[in-house]
Amino acid sequence: MTYGQLAPPGALADGGLRIVALGGIGEIGRNMTVFEYGGRLLVVDCGVLFPEDQQPGVDLILPDFRAIEPRLDDIDAIVLTHGHEDHIGAVPFLLRHRPDLPVVGSRFTLALVAAKCREHRLTPRLVEVAEGGRVGFGEFDCEFFAVNHSIPDALAVAIRTPAGLVLHTGDIKLDQLPLDGRLTDLAGFSRLGDEGVDLFLVDSTNAEVPGFVMAEREIGPVLDNVISRAGQRVIVACFASHVHRVQQVLDVAIAHDRRVALVGRSMVRNMGIAAELGLLRVPDGLLVDLAEAMELPEHQVLFVSTGSQGEPLSALSRMARGEHRQIRIRPGDTVVLASSMIPGNETAVFGVVNGLARLGASVVHQGNAKVHVSGHASAGELLFLYNAVRPSNVMPVHGEWRHLRANAALAVATGVPAENVVLAEDGVVVDLVDGRASIVGRVEVGHVYVDGLSVGDVGESTLSDRLILGEGGFIAITVAVDSTTGRPLGPPTISGRGFSDDPKALDEVMSLVEMELSHTESEGITDTHRIAQSVRRVVGRWVADTYRRRPMIVPTVIPV
Amino acid sequence: MTYGQLAPPGALADGGLRIVALGGIGEIGRNMTVFEYGGRLLVVDCGVLFPEDQQPGVDLILPDFRAIEPRLDDIDAIVLTHGHEDHIGAVPFLLRHRPDLPVVGSRFTLALVAAKCREHRLTPRLVEVAEGGRVGFGEFDCEFFAVNHSIPDALAVAIRTPAGLVLHTGDIKLDQLPLDGRLTDLAGFSRLGDEGVDLFLVDSTNAEVPGFVMAEREIGPVLDNVISRAGQRVIVACFASHVHRVQQVLDVAIAHDRRVALVGRSMVRNMGIAAELGLLRVPDGLLVDLAEAMELPEHQVLFVSTGSQGEPLSALSRMARGEHRQIRIRPGDTVVLASSMIPGNETAVFGVVNGLARLGASVVHQGNAKVHVSGHASAGELLFLYNAVRPSNVMPVHGEWRHLRANAALAVATGVPAENVVLAEDGVVVDLVDGRASIVGRVEVGHVYVDGLSVGDVGESTLSDRLILGEGGFIAITVAVDSTTGRPLGPPTISGRGFSDDPKALDEVMSLVEMELSHTESEGITDTHRIAQSVRRVVGRWVADTYRRRPMIVPTVIPV
Repeated sequence: MTYGQLAPPGALADGGLRIVALGGIGEIGRNMTVFEYGGRLLVVDCGVLFPEDQQPGVDLILPDFRAIEPRLDDIDAIVLTHGHEDHIGAVPFLLRHRPDLPVVGSRFTLALVAAKCREHRLTPRLVEVAEGGRVGFGEFDCEFFAVNHSIPDALAVAIRTPAGLVLHTGDIKLDQLPLDGRLTDLAGFSRLGDEGVDLFLVDSTNAEVPGFVMAEREIGPVLDNVISRAGQRVIVACFASHVHRVQQVLDVAIAHDRRVALVGRSMVRNMGIAAELGLLRVPDGLLVDLAEAMELPEHQVLFVSTGSQGEPLSALSRMARGEHRQIRIRPGDTVVLASSMIPGNETAVFGVVNGLARLGASVVHQGNAKVHVSGHASAGELLFLYNAVRPSNVMPVHGEWRHLRANAALAVATGVPAENVVLAEDGVVVDLVDGRASIVGRVEVGHVYVDGLSVGDVGESTLSDRLILGEGGFIAITVAVDSTTGRPLGPPTISGRGFSDDPKALDEVMSLVEMELSHTESEGITDTHRIAQSVRRVVGRWVADTYRRRPMIVPTVIPV
Repeated sequence: MTYGQLAPPGALADGGLRIVALGGIGEIGRNMTVFEYGGRLLVVDCGVLFPEDQQPGVDLILPDFRAIEPRLDDIDAIVLTHGHEDHIGAVPFLLRHRPDLPVVGSRFTLALVAAKCREHRLTPRLVEVAEGGRVGFGEFDCEFFAVNHSIPDALAVAIRTPAGLVLHTGDIKLDQLPLDGRLTDLAGFSRLGDEGVDLFLVDSTNAEVPGFVMAEREIGPVLDNVISRAGQRVIVACFASHVHRVQQVLDVAIAHDRRVALVGRSMVRNMGIAAELGLLRVPDGLLVDLAEAMELPEHQVLFVSTGSQGEPLSALSRMARGEHRQIRIRPGDTVVLASSMIPGNETAVFGVVNGLARLGASVVHQGNAKVHVSGHASAGELLFLYNAVRPSNVMPVHGEWRHLRANAALAVATGVPAENVVLAEDGVVVDLVDGRASIVGRVEVGHVYVDGLSVGDVGESTLSDRLILGEGGFIAITVAVDSTTGRPLGPPTISGRGFSDDPKALDEVMSLVEMELSHTESEGITDTHRIAQSVRRVVGRWVADTYRRRPMIVPTVIPV
């Protein structure tokens, strides 16, 4: 069966549970899963996806809400598993439709959501929950379990309806010595397993990676080793939500008598929230602001910065280009990228690394030191999960197709029958009926782009034009014609942008166009659209033959 | 010292040797190093670089020949270390200037160069050399050494002039059990070390990677394991020049009674050359063409294909999209990507992997099995090289800045004084005088782009326009005005491409522009350039305020 051939699903069977992802399956990002029971809906996560090369100019990609837009009033709540952007980033866009929707999550998650909503001038209705808690939202009885991930306070959610018990891991790993002692509640999962889990939705991100993720706390000694040898300034870049990573950096800074300045708006904000909630221990006097830091001797300061993904406007990128206003990299400085590279960001990140290296900094990164561990369970950990939960049905989530297949294979290896492992993707509708999960159809799920202030007006046709323009630029030909005779009024204006540096490149086009215009005139063509088409054809062919290029040809014929 | 501040160098001291890279230092690709002695030049390698996201529409990037263009007649020869594109790809472009230039290389290298030159309708003057050979080219006495790399018949070159002995590794690794038994000639390097190497140019690509590259022959058993378990069709993608990798695939195919079809023009061509030169053993009857392969039972066929880098037009990409004319992927097929991912290609490669996985293929790649080893020496091997050669001066080549620094650190660790390690980049001029290498200045080296049939007419300003257009599209406003009064003749024509899917997005612009035109008319402005500027400003500001986007604003004012 090809997924593309699936038809829209029929009605949900009485007593059945319907599951459909509007984002996050078949891709990594914009996670959003909708559960339906008895005519009511529960949303788990509502995140954004960051664009790739093929989506130029796009700032964010949202889950596609179309499937639920006619039924917004049926939603009982939105449950958030943790505070990463790919799980909470689209919440404000959903709240625009339903500002009263209860937003359910842990303390830290909700603090990040509240901050985000403030930027959107929204005041969400927040419902705080914690591990061990059990709360009903309409038809959905939700129980929460502690989960270990690369952000504090992450939760898995078990959803009970008369259709059965569903467990959704959110993002998860099984660090057995977590920095905060908050283990993934495998015991709780086992208890659910005893009760009988009908459907298990499992994080697939690292399913292809064999073995186990190294413990977060093993990074501390590596950082200590690097920073103890640094004789000058140290800059550590990491994700702005990775509280435990920052904690380890702070601890090392303290050990080596360095003060710490936080650099980057989101770093300052998130660490403020974390400290306030008691998730980050910051001794008095440790933090200084940037101006104070610049006054300190170089071996007594450490900067914790954003920009670990090579974002061109970040402080770190500016340092790498020698353009940062305060911090100028000098030979002997040490920079640590204590972070992964999100796929697609490699070129940007290594651009920053090379810029820093060129200026003489010693750059420590994932590629040459163990300064990062993943937040997602590797294959070995996923096996532990499957063996604890012993699910009847499995649905791999949070992954591209290669991850979903690898995760499915792990489920099967632990004894889940292959026919009970549902490989879905965004929009594919899965019904859990009589204890059996199966694909029943699909709803349309597209990419919803945010570009600047607008949502949704940039679609595939605009992106396709951008890609053509980006590859080859355009050649514009403008001419005014007498609207009754089609006679050109003066010579055409020909200009190209993104086509060639050579000002004479288009000189030949002028005579080509003039010839074509006298031809259309002699044919008695006065329809400006037809004249434009002729000009486009002639110029396009000439450019292809002469240059083997495909700029956009933009003829404008003005009737006067 | 900042490299950007270096001035052009003064005259080369009598008896000195000058070295400048026109590509390949500070970047990976378009390797080209020029040696100058006694007024004469020797070029080592002349390759291309493949473009990145920031160079849209570009097909190839060439070394910048400007520094040698006034002195083309002084070049004695061009020596090629091996046949990869980043070492030979720009040869035809140099030969256009000097068709008579001797092109020196090993048998396989020259066979690839000859094939490439045929496509450019050039008949190069080829000079075949082999390991152990010593040949003079003008002032330059060249000795060649066998080198192990990911292509057969690679050479290092020792260049003797009265200024001293220089050793250039080309691309190199130290596989101690190479498939063809042709070891990197470490004994020869040691002999040179005994003689005294004044300057050692060393491949930096893997200098950041600790340890040693696994032997190529260890891939065979992995391939055997994968292919022995395959019940249906097997497709193996790898680099079209990796003869030893293909050899191992052929051997496994033979072991499992599969016939082999080669897919992709360069694969067919290169393997033909390799077989003819005795570098690839192909038993009679093993190879079949695609049509024959399609007639065979699925478990008796294996395809060796190009497309391992996710090239969108390759056979493999078309299979992944379900668009290949003959080969349709079905659940249970096996695809092996026996290749690295060239940095920057990750998204494209994983796009292909996901497409194949979605169609049900089992996809084996570098990320989940040991089906690739690098062709470049890791840090451990580089230490062996430094300890064998014991150079007086070192110049890391073939690498981005992070690789150059890592390589420099290795040289220093083996005892080379730090001040004798020259960290140059493209265009930085290094003189070897009295046994001491030092930076003496720089010449300008830019990026020379090939786009379609033209070389050099696409430069930074065109690329910058392409990036703007690719991010935001354009809005074109065209209006005819009375050239004496500046009065608009009819309403302006407003169109946008790559800006918004919403046809009404620009409706407001019309009245804005009309207002501005009546303003310029009332001010008595008739200069079309000034009118256009006013229109651009007004529209640009409106778009920025309304959409927070930055399309290119293209006003055309036609005087009638």
